[in-house]
Amino acid sequence: TVSRLPNVGTTIFSVMSALAAETGAVNLGQGFPDFECDPALVDAVTAAMKEGHNQYPPMPGVPALRQAMADKMLALYGHRCDPATEITVTAGATQAILTAILAVVHPGDEVIVLEPCYDSYVPNIELVGGVVVRVALTPGSFRPDFSAIEAAITPRTRALIINSPHNPSGQVWSEADMLALQDLLAPTNILLISDEVYEHMVFDGEQHQSAARFPGLASRAFIISSFGKTYHVTGWKVGTVIAPALLMSEFRKVHQFNVFTVNTPMQHALSAYLTNPAPYRDLPAFYQRKRDLFRDGLASTRFRLLPGQGTYFQCVGIEGLTVAERELPEADFCQWLTREIGVAAIPLSAFYGNGFDQRVIRFCFAKRDDTLQAALARLAKL
Amino acid sequence: TVSRLPNVGTTIFSVMSALAAETGAVNLGQGFPDFECDPALVDAVTAAMKEGHNQYPPMPGVPALRQAMADKMLALYGHRCDPATEITVTAGATQAILTAILAVVHPGDEVIVLEPCYDSYVPNIELVGGVVVRVALTPGSFRPDFSAIEAAITPRTRALIINSPHNPSGQVWSEADMLALQDLLAPTNILLISDEVYEHMVFDGEQHQSAARFPGLASRAFIISSFGKTYHVTGWKVGTVIAPALLMSEFRKVHQFNVFTVNTPMQHALSAYLTNPAPYRDLPAFYQRKRDLFRDGLASTRFRLLPGQGTYFQCVGIEGLTVAERELPEADFCQWLTREIGVAAIPLSAFYGNGFDQRVIRFCFAKRDDTLQAALARLAKL
Ligand SMILES: CSCCC(=O)C(=O)O
Ligand SMILES: CSCCC(=O)C(=O)O
Repeated sequence: TVSRLPNVGTTIFSVMSALAAETGAVNLGQGFPDFECDPALVDAVTAAMKEGHNQYPPMPGVPALRQAMADKMLALYGHRCDPATEITVTAGATQAILTAILAVVHPGDEVIVLEPCYDSYVPNIELVGGVVVRVALTPGSFRPDFSAIEAAITPRTRALIINSPHNPSGQVWSEADMLALQDLLAPTNILLISDEVYEHMVFDGEQHQSAARFPGLASRAFIISSFGKTYHVTGWKVGTVIAPALLMSEFRKVHQFNVFTVNTPMQHALSAYLTNPAPYRDLPAFYQRKRDLFRDGLASTRFRLLPGQGTYFQCVGIEGLTVAERELPEADFCQWLTREIGVAAIPLSAFYGNGFDQRVIRFCFAKRDDTLQAALARLAKL
Repeated sequence: TVSRLPNVGTTIFSVMSALAAETGAVNLGQGFPDFECDPALVDAVTAAMKEGHNQYPPMPGVPALRQAMADKMLALYGHRCDPATEITVTAGATQAILTAILAVVHPGDEVIVLEPCYDSYVPNIELVGGVVVRVALTPGSFRPDFSAIEAAITPRTRALIINSPHNPSGQVWSEADMLALQDLLAPTNILLISDEVYEHMVFDGEQHQSAARFPGLASRAFIISSFGKTYHVTGWKVGTVIAPALLMSEFRKVHQFNVFTVNTPMQHALSAYLTNPAPYRDLPAFYQRKRDLFRDGLASTRFRLLPGQGTYFQCVGIEGLTVAERELPEADFCQWLTREIGVAAIPLSAFYGNGFDQRVIRFCFAKRDDTLQAALARLAKL
């Protein structure tokens, strides 16, 4: 066979969005907002195009955007990084993760992923001939299990991928978690890929514990961020990766031969916008209100609410929710929920290599209030 | 070492653009226009953003853009392809090429490249553990040497990468060339990656011979195109890849875990714009006038003009052009030309794995007339 990914199909997010569109369901599956971004950001893109910023930007990204990112890292996380050598603008976070893996994972190297995890990680590792080592987050709580991670480390371990705030569970790693990780990795050369795309969606007074705050982690990490998620423009496909210069030079070798550069007008628009902390500072309150509205509505349904302090996802247990007196597998339940109840969701089994089914599905609450209310009205019929 | 590309530095195009910026040289190095795109295209992006097209598009691309591309392929090349399964929108041509290679080249597979070639091809193949098989285009003429290609084929040959109109030489493959290639590949399972980003820059009444015109090639090819090159928006980073459904399904498996999707507002803007053939139909005349202006100016310099019927590049011989009575290597000559004469160019040696030096450098003439004239005035001082 010609296939290098024989076990891979179309990503669940596309499948469920297509099904939602086809059936007219309220789409709480794929993670993206159904409301508009700040019109000032749109105007800034228009201005950039009219000013003639339509040709290749510098390969690592527009300098003003890298500088604004460096300023933000220092202000928020106390992390000093050099925009010339330690920040690169990417075509979204997914491209950043694949590029980091292509840059540093050699065939036969082991990479630890913590399941459930975003569905690109495992195929990314497989594409470079890396060996995927799966460690489960603690069942039920989705908390990191450091003894399990430690037990998975071997002399061949090249990298570990973490993701906090965590998609799909919404769990947020604590400072103690990050310190434990820092201690665990201290005697090793293991690289860290820290997927922090939901960094500005942390609720209940909790704080995002960026790897950037921890020198023993920042010194070995690719720290990945997403303007699409933070500024409600998932379709613009602009993110960043931050890494020490030695790692970044390897990253850029691959980046330049993957996408080469990233959309110029969007980068210019984001450069100025990023210097204003208000939009990301206000994001937790904005999304916490939506989360609470959605959780309150779900409380009177037959779904079991799972805890979560971050992301724009809410997981729920579906134990006892029978269809024709049968408990369907999560994936089938999501299909049924989309077709028959009119609300699309994502099965957690899609985030596990072995399709582990724990009777949990994920909703996205990055939606207008009326969308959430329409979904809740349908879910209440269950 | 952690490096997977130990022999790779920063791409020559970035290096020379940075040097041009630093020294104030006229930048005829990296290939990009210094004039503006059609304002209607800018307005269309603004309209798309204001209409709310700011979230993820469908993974393979905005349907209207794929449909417009299918219509164009049929109208121009007589090639019928299904937008649902045979066209994918990419974040530029470079991303399309890496993604195709990641999708179908297995470790140990051989991939034939025709040197000189674009500098991403070889590192792309190396990243997947493929074996690079270099075949020279005929020295002097840069024409394909089919007996050399045939001699390079082995049972391990997975793919061949071709590029016409050819960067850097400007050579355009003839119908006879494409038929010869079709015959050569007929008894094999070798896949074709056809980099056609300069498809609309063919001069002197010649025609672009897309692989799409040849059923025996189209049935095994990834055909790669670039809106950035055609519409003077290299910084927008939107291209397309066309392939038979079986190949495209493999391509999309990787694409979805590389960039996932491509900038939504730009795709919407291009959808409508692409239905109008005028912009690409008029492009040959537009660039031929610039090429002829530039060639006429060069004729009175000490550079030797090389023939070329396509792309926005002009190659010149530098035989006898001494600096302090020495003939510098091409790369050093380009550095000197940039610093001392104030015109940046690209050495052809950058397009060869072994740095082969044939006393030829490349200028880009996708520039305003006054830019070309300023460069010519400086070059005349030689
Ligand atoms: C890139 S796919 C959709 C967004 C996402 O991250 C998710 O739904 O989990
Ligand atoms: C993507 S780098 C610059 C453009 C180009 O293709 C070239 O100069 O050859």
